[in-house]
Amino acid sequence: MEITLEQLAALTQGTILSGEPQTKLTGFAGLRESAGGDLSFFANERYLNDVRRTRASAVLVPQGFSETVPGVALVACANASVAFAEIVRRFMPPPREFRPGVHPSAVVDASAKLNRDRVCIGACAVIEAGAEIGDGTEIGPGCVVGEQVRLGRDCLLHPRVTVAGHCILGDRVRLHSGVVIGGDGFGYELVDGRHQKIEQVGIVQLDDDVEIGANSTVDRARFGRTWIGEGTKVDNLVQIAHNCVLGRHVIVVAQSGIAGSTRVGDYTIVAAQAGIGGHLDIGPHIIIAGRSGVTADLPDKGTYAGMPAQPFKEHQVHKVLVRKLPELFERVKRLEKGTE
Amino acid sequence: MEITLEQLAALTQGTILSGEPQTKLTGFAGLRESAGGDLSFFANERYLNDVRRTRASAVLVPQGFSETVPGVALVACANASVAFAEIVRRFMPPPREFRPGVHPSAVVDASAKLNRDRVCIGACAVIEAGAEIGDGTEIGPGCVVGEQVRLGRDCLLHPRVTVAGHCILGDRVRLHSGVVIGGDGFGYELVDGRHQKIEQVGIVQLDDDVEIGANSTVDRARFGRTWIGEGTKVDNLVQIAHNCVLGRHVIVVAQSGIAGSTRVGDYTIVAAQAGIGGHLDIGPHIIIAGRSGVTADLPDKGTYAGMPAQPFKEHQVHKVLVRKLPELFERVKRLEKGTE
Amino acid sequence: MEITLEQLAALTQGTILSGEPQTKLTGFAGLRESAGGDLSFFANERYLNDVRRTRASAVLVPQGFSETVPGVALVACANASVAFAEIVRRFMPPPREFRPGVHPSAVVDASAKLNRDRVCIGACAVIEAGAEIGDGTEIGPGCVVGEQVRLGRDCLLHPRVTVAGHCILGDRVRLHSGVVIGGDGFGYELVDGRHQKIEQVGIVQLDDDVEIGANSTVDRARFGRTWIGEGTKVDNLVQIAHNCVLGRHVIVVAQSGIAGSTRVGDYTIVAAQAGIGGHLDIGPHIIIAGRSGVTADLPDKGTYAGMPAQPFKEHQVHKVLVRKLPELFERVKRLEKGTE
Repeated sequence: MEITLEQLAALTQGTILSGEPQTKLTGFAGLRESAGGDLSFFANERYLNDVRRTRASAVLVPQGFSETVPGVALVACANASVAFAEIVRRFMPPPREFRPGVHPSAVVDASAKLNRDRVCIGACAVIEAGAEIGDGTEIGPGCVVGEQVRLGRDCLLHPRVTVAGHCILGDRVRLHSGVVIGGDGFGYELVDGRHQKIEQVGIVQLDDDVEIGANSTVDRARFGRTWIGEGTKVDNLVQIAHNCVLGRHVIVVAQSGIAGSTRVGDYTIVAAQAGIGGHLDIGPHIIIAGRSGVTADLPDKGTYAGMPAQPFKEHQVHKVLVRKLPELFERVKRLEKGTE
Repeated sequence: MEITLEQLAALTQGTILSGEPQTKLTGFAGLRESAGGDLSFFANERYLNDVRRTRASAVLVPQGFSETVPGVALVACANASVAFAEIVRRFMPPPREFRPGVHPSAVVDASAKLNRDRVCIGACAVIEAGAEIGDGTEIGPGCVVGEQVRLGRDCLLHPRVTVAGHCILGDRVRLHSGVVIGGDGFGYELVDGRHQKIEQVGIVQLDDDVEIGANSTVDRARFGRTWIGEGTKVDNLVQIAHNCVLGRHVIVVAQSGIAGSTRVGDYTIVAAQAGIGGHLDIGPHIIIAGRSGVTADLPDKGTYAGMPAQPFKEHQVHKVLVRKLPELFERVKRLEKGTE
Repeated sequence: MEITLEQLAALTQGTILSGEPQTKLTGFAGLRESAGGDLSFFANERYLNDVRRTRASAVLVPQGFSETVPGVALVACANASVAFAEIVRRFMPPPREFRPGVHPSAVVDASAKLNRDRVCIGACAVIEAGAEIGDGTEIGPGCVVGEQVRLGRDCLLHPRVTVAGHCILGDRVRLHSGVVIGGDGFGYELVDGRHQKIEQVGIVQLDDDVEIGANSTVDRARFGRTWIGEGTKVDNLVQIAHNCVLGRHVIVVAQSGIAGSTRVGDYTIVAAQAGIGGHLDIGPHIIIAGRSGVTADLPDKGTYAGMPAQPFKEHQVHKVLVRKLPELFERVKRLEKGTE
């Protein structure tokens, strides 16, 4: 992007409140992360302080905006948020195109089932024996797709993803860089003082429209499957242990972990850095607050927090009362003095 | 696997309680993660609810099982758990074979010490100068084995593992996809307002039979070694910092972290999402509960929980009393009223 | 390294207090992680117990050291710590040399801008279209550098790093193995019961001298940039979400996470396994204790701890009082009895 303030005003049907018409704008960003050359926008009074401290070169503001911000050009327009979104759409990098073909450096086993004119296999990617890849699917550079893996159509594996042998992915599954699907479940038996490995012979199944964030891990089942339902979205650095069953449209935010054989119902939200113990049943439409630790079944709709997790309101009450403990100790002391 | 219910009954010397003899079974799984076509089993009353809700097509049940489950075929046999295990053994995918050889796309430095007929080096793997790889060891596709690394016999590096320069691995070490052995320890000195890097010139040493889960990281020592003892098992997304010394047969569950220079004794268990501070001494045969934070030495056998971690029973008492705070505040209020 | 005890004494101008002069020393390490053949040192009374339990073959000790340690040779010298550091410097492996050139197995797009004689591109690395790589920069084996990425001079990407399309790195940036820069931010809108992806079209910008630990992830911005300031150091397995802005010389320790659009001021320290919520403002020169959860702005210098994080001293008081709850319940009971 490269436009002048003047051109911006024309594009947004706005008015320059301050700033040189020839000021060049070369990018766009939120108020907080803007740098010199950036255009930003202000649409919510809550962020007034951010306008005052922004490093943006220009800010779209609502009509009637009365502050001046030294060093920042201001353009008033009817709806700053909408106008900004239009500028973003106009100038953002074009979405990555799907370019079918198999890179000559990719290593595709002769027994793999795929249509070389309808899939995209990146440089140094490895597709092992018997793997099946649906049309429209893109496998990024450096990915490893194991033996007998089945990938549906229109999937996108970003660079350096592992899908280990025999796992099954539906259509439009997106896996970000560093994801590991199908590592062994963590299972040992202590025999004569040594942890003997329990072989993990199951698979991972990811249904349609699942998306999994960078460096997250989903372990294969001891037998059967670790299963993530349609439309479920998982953030970065999340651990999903063997034999878990996540429902449809579940959200799991960054750095959370779900221990073995736990079920999570449809539409449940697991906020960041939470943990759910093994062999539990978490119902649908539940919200587990960030950094909570769930140690028992949660059948009932609601929000839960704390370690161990309890209904959010109870948790809040306890938190407040703990903060009042200094006062309570004082009050008890006074009572004791009174009774001496 | 593809057998009929009838064939299943014959194989398990069982009796069909319900279901069409020609029902086809194409897989096996636990009650909770079964899908259509799967065989499952029921052997423990605790999971009766799981039988009622299973999506399996057939379930092995104990003789005398009296419930009917709509849509699920039931086969009664002498020991459902044993019978199921036998079916699993019979039909599970054959274990990966060790196929010696160096893939033509692998990049093996001429100075690496290995017997090309007795190791397996996968596609696009990189073996740097002077690395030494024992017989029977398999290096998965996309792995990077750094300069002068020494790997013992019969190790298994899953795809996309990094073992950085000079690290030493014993025999039968297993590293899952995405593991990083030998990243720099995190050490800086603040000099004139800048964090100056303290060079990390030590190594990581993993003794025989260590297994490390997907995307876990073990940092190299400042000097000397970060050291994980024989038979210790580490789950996914775990961080082991520089100069840690883990004993033998330790268990570290997913997403836990151990800070620099801490020692952990033999057979200690660090449950999921726990943290152990730096420069601490944790004794042998200790259990650190999930999500605990250890901030002091733990010399004595026992179970510890909480943040900071304390003996489990004390921790439980405090948790219970915190939940009784609303009542305690009431009681104190009543006392105050009484003394007015 | 291979020297005798005698040679060690000569090199350090020390005196052999105990041990055979011909004892061979083959490495060096701290007292705790030493093994047979290692030299270690003792300089601080606090670690006296470590001397008694060390497995080192020899230990440098201060003059006047009066203990004997069975099986461990002791050499007294003027300053044990300094003498040890000198031995380390003399015998440590030479630092990795920068060896310019592009490995023949690397896949470098014809449109990439780099000087093949002044950069080092490792085996099986992939450099996509339009990427720009400054002189003196080393890209390790198996790395993927996306389209239009800009890397400054003298950067070091350890093996198997992803820098996704359009991201910008300054000079001397170091990324450890498994790092993912520029995965999509985690953003969805619930439309008709499905999580619809909000496209993430921004970038990540890492300024000069940033270092990021193994398997950490920094997500690209929704638009604009996720931005990490000059000299900031991030440990392993850390998550930095979309649109975060970290200041200069910030420290983020292992397994911490910072949610979307949060700002962190210069020189702030986020200790291990902490979490910071989204859209917050954390001031400069703040210390967030390990395992804390920050849920509100922290404008003022100081140390904060707990979940939710509060000033460290208050947090400590509450912790202490919770531990006194059994006693408080007793005291209230006694008061109640007294008033019956």
